[in-house]
Amino acid sequence: MTKSSSSRALERYVPILGWGRSYDREMATNDLVAAVIVTIMLIPQSLAYALLAGLPPEVGLYASILPLVAYAIFGTSRALAVGPVAVVSLMTASAVGELAAQGTPEYLGAAIVLAFMSGLMLVAMGLFRLGFLANLLSHPVISGFITASGLLIASSQLKHILGVPASGHTLYEIGGALVAHLGDINWITFAIGASATAFLFWVRKDLKRRLLALGLKPFVADILTKAGPVAAVAATTLLAAAFDLGERGVRVVGDIPSGLPVPQFPSFQSDLWLQLLGPALLISVIGFVESVSVAQTLAAKKRQRIEPDQELIGLGASNIASAVSGGYPVTGGFARSVVNFDAGAATPAAGAFTAIGIAVATLFLTPLLTHLPQATLAAAIIVAVLSLVDLGAIKRTFAYSKSDFLAMAATILVTLFFGVEQGVVTGVALSIALHLYRSSRPHTAIVGVVPGTEHFRNIDRHAVVTGSRVLSLRVDESLFFANSRYLEDRIYGLVSDRPEIEHVVLMCPAVNSIDASALESLEEINHRLSDSGVSFHLSEVKGPVMDRLKRTDFLSHLTGQVFLSQYDALCTLDPQTAHISESRTPKKAAQSDIWTGPEI
Amino acid sequence: MTKSSSSRALERYVPILGWGRSYDREMATNDLVAAVIVTIMLIPQSLAYALLAGLPPEVGLYASILPLVAYAIFGTSRALAVGPVAVVSLMTASAVGELAAQGTPEYLGAAIVLAFMSGLMLVAMGLFRLGFLANLLSHPVISGFITASGLLIASSQLKHILGVPASGHTLYEIGGALVAHLGDINWITFAIGASATAFLFWVRKDLKRRLLALGLKPFVADILTKAGPVAAVAATTLLAAAFDLGERGVRVVGDIPSGLPVPQFPSFQSDLWLQLLGPALLISVIGFVESVSVAQTLAAKKRQRIEPDQELIGLGASNIASAVSGGYPVTGGFARSVVNFDAGAATPAAGAFTAIGIAVATLFLTPLLTHLPQATLAAAIIVAVLSLVDLGAIKRTFAYSKSDFLAMAATILVTLFFGVEQGVVTGVALSIALHLYRSSRPHTAIVGVVPGTEHFRNIDRHAVVTGSRVLSLRVDESLFFANSRYLEDRIYGLVSDRPEIEHVVLMCPAVNSIDASALESLEEINHRLSDSGVSFHLSEVKGPVMDRLKRTDFLSHLTGQVFLSQYDALCTLDPQTAHISESRTPKKAAQSDIWTGPEI
Repeated sequence: MTKSSSSRALERYVPILGWGRSYDREMATNDLVAAVIVTIMLIPQSLAYALLAGLPPEVGLYASILPLVAYAIFGTSRALAVGPVAVVSLMTASAVGELAAQGTPEYLGAAIVLAFMSGLMLVAMGLFRLGFLANLLSHPVISGFITASGLLIASSQLKHILGVPASGHTLYEIGGALVAHLGDINWITFAIGASATAFLFWVRKDLKRRLLALGLKPFVADILTKAGPVAAVAATTLLAAAFDLGERGVRVVGDIPSGLPVPQFPSFQSDLWLQLLGPALLISVIGFVESVSVAQTLAAKKRQRIEPDQELIGLGASNIASAVSGGYPVTGGFARSVVNFDAGAATPAAGAFTAIGIAVATLFLTPLLTHLPQATLAAAIIVAVLSLVDLGAIKRTFAYSKSDFLAMAATILVTLFFGVEQGVVTGVALSIALHLYRSSRPHTAIVGVVPGTEHFRNIDRHAVVTGSRVLSLRVDESLFFANSRYLEDRIYGLVSDRPEIEHVVLMCPAVNSIDASALESLEEINHRLSDSGVSFHLSEVKGPVMDRLKRTDFLSHLTGQVFLSQYDALCTLDPQTAHISESRTPKKAAQSDIWTGPEI
Repeated sequence: MTKSSSSRALERYVPILGWGRSYDREMATNDLVAAVIVTIMLIPQSLAYALLAGLPPEVGLYASILPLVAYAIFGTSRALAVGPVAVVSLMTASAVGELAAQGTPEYLGAAIVLAFMSGLMLVAMGLFRLGFLANLLSHPVISGFITASGLLIASSQLKHILGVPASGHTLYEIGGALVAHLGDINWITFAIGASATAFLFWVRKDLKRRLLALGLKPFVADILTKAGPVAAVAATTLLAAAFDLGERGVRVVGDIPSGLPVPQFPSFQSDLWLQLLGPALLISVIGFVESVSVAQTLAAKKRQRIEPDQELIGLGASNIASAVSGGYPVTGGFARSVVNFDAGAATPAAGAFTAIGIAVATLFLTPLLTHLPQATLAAAIIVAVLSLVDLGAIKRTFAYSKSDFLAMAATILVTLFFGVEQGVVTGVALSIALHLYRSSRPHTAIVGVVPGTEHFRNIDRHAVVTGSRVLSLRVDESLFFANSRYLEDRIYGLVSDRPEIEHVVLMCPAVNSIDASALESLEEINHRLSDSGVSFHLSEVKGPVMDRLKRTDFLSHLTGQVFLSQYDALCTLDPQTAHISESRTPKKAAQSDIWTGPEI
């Protein structure tokens, strides 16, 4: 028993002990195929992102070896591929750039410390179970962010397809740069990029069906379909090498420095740590949010589940691993995770295999990729990310809820035109703001008794009996700071419109909590009604809420009583109406000789 | 009818038309007394805050004339005194300081534009009814902010009492500066300041009781008590003049430049407006939050009500008035509003009288105040603001709710040690975060039927009948992005623990809305349960929620049914248990031969 529970706890924090046990040959095959494809894709990406971060190219490769092994051990997503990503690379450049000049050992040292601090923060957040923060990312915000990022990444790859030097971080910048360089298109590059894109779209849409029609077994058809990008890479590399296209203006990957990273400790200068505290926190949060939304989307596609708290530990371990092996901050990458998922990665072992692949490639295979055209990689990325653009979700959300649609549309537009961080932050802030705005008007209903029963229902929807001396108001939500003033206004309004009211009964069957602000409002309502000669009562207060009210002096100041049921309240405060309601049977209730609500 | 409704609308936007009609002599007397005291207090304060903002001293006086008249016409608080305040003065200095050098016409011009833009923004927020934003300030946050600000302002005045040049914006800075200057205490200043403080405390605590005991009428006793600060000012000014204490190191108000402001238009340079957009928005929001929390606290003390939307218009009008009369951004001031309230201000007319007082003083009376020791003013401020420090509220909040206490404590500590803006922002953010954290675990209960009835109750709290094949789970809150994943986990957990379950019925009597994220979760629950051979049903879904679900394809995919009542669900899915429950009377329910919940 003890052993089983302790081994279960260990499995919780080291997920590889769980899935590792049932790891089989089929999974290994799937993982290996995915790893090969991701490795091929990750080498030039790592180089590109390291340059974006202002770091030597080999730092990008180092950040793609040990971090992947660490994630394979501690992560919970079966498809997430960690490593250097665009947003975090940019954030690294901006944070480190303020402390040291590019190319200096101080610059590299600061980037390493940034990864180490970010790793420690993520692990701490995971151990303190702050993963619930991911719940703040509503589905429309995640979905909008993924769609917008897909569009943004795809459009950012167009320059590689066209062979122009346009760059930018928003749709506006990218579009402007592309238009400005329309005259500079390299037509050989364009021919390669466009053919590769068309080929990969065809592979994704049509190839499997045709292979099955030819009589191939589904598994073989699947492997061949997934090998599409590999085929494109091989074919275009050979083409480029044969005709020396690098010399004709086609941008190729070129010479990659080789050699494995040497384990080392980051610097522990307290000044540096203090200066990087803010940026490290920002990188941790944005990296986690980006990574967890990718992981959740991919997990949902296969009805799998990720554990946000453990994801924090997995990403934290990856960043610590990156720092001690001379890398820089990493997180779950968007495009490569999609490629990994798409290529059939079955477990996090795909990441470990990718790490081996990168290590081997760094040592031996990089010369073979010298002639690989960047346009081919761009085509693979475009085809992969466009599958995540879900315009149907936008339409469905619009039909279901205008406020969810608003959050989604804002996320998409801000992500496209201002940047990914701004997009996520806007989406989260807007979802919370819209939720609070909706919560600021709690649902309330004036209720009356259903004749012949002890049930109370909304007078606007049911045929019920009410007396004029007692106002019974049911509140259908917990009371807290954002909605308590609305309740005050509602009660004052009702009482001032009906001078005959002597008692107000607040019926609380759905009130699960009353915070300090709402308690203040109830005290205020009690005082004000007392000034107008009206008694204030409560009914059907839940046990835990009542226990808490007993800890205050509210009940001793209350001008009225607390009734166990609304029917008790009616019998005590207005026995005549209670008597009338008893003499009617429910069948007679809808007849016109008793008071009925306006909508019946 | 038309006339009355249009005049009511006019009254809404121009509150003076409402209270002005019933304005009488007693109110006027109260307002005049308050205005005299506030005028005396406001003159040196205006000069001091203008210097803090880097502006010529007369700009502070200009900002204390027309803005007060504008607020008297458009404002709703009966005690709020607008004018230059410390926080906004600091923010003005930092915003304008980046655009021009102190002492230049450009610097003054930018401050004027800042007031104008801030005024326009506030009026726009008021017209679009964004005043509900004030609801986000929970009571513990307001209360904590007021307490902390009171302590901060009081401690900032200690330097005037001690006659040392210590300054700072947080308790830490102020304390450090005071300790550093302990050797420089001017003992004459200290004697004046300490005596004035002791005198004013005695006036507040004891004088009225003694005057009444001497046989004076309550009204006269009241007036005399309120004149305490005036007496202190007169006595110490005479003393300082007689002994020429200004020459002995006692800081006095000194020579004040005289002359009234000339109406003018602010600059309309688009560059300047663009650069000041951000600072103007920040000043508007912080100014409104500061002002509205002071106004709400004071209104609550007299059971009055302020209208946040109209307050936005009132403060906006004040800032526009300030700009066109050569002033700078203003808002409701904390200390002077307390003095105004304390001195008995009955209506916003007190502000208009103060404006006249400042104008007259600017023209004629300033020479008389040349010898007024600053220590006396500091004593009046200290005695006024310390009355707002409500340590009892901290204790009550701690006893009632630990999470409200956390928000309050954070607000107090951050305000004291990091600054007022940071304090409010931290408090609001923390209240929202804690609310969302609490909301992330919706209250749910497994329910069974109360024997002999059609009622369902929590099995943990009541003696009820349940069958093993049907799991009935009642969810007691609306479902939205922050709590929907918790519901998923709860259902999966219950179903995986009880393999005999064939049906899950989600009972939704308290669910007022289901957002797009929660809909996604319900779809997910339906799919997952279906995979485990369990049907998923809903019961007691409210009309508006059902209407919205019908707009989606959720109901067509639902493996189970939607029942009108939970009892219908039981009769259909588990007729045997329904039959057992019918044969029991409620009185027998507590007996041991039927299944009862663990807590009974």
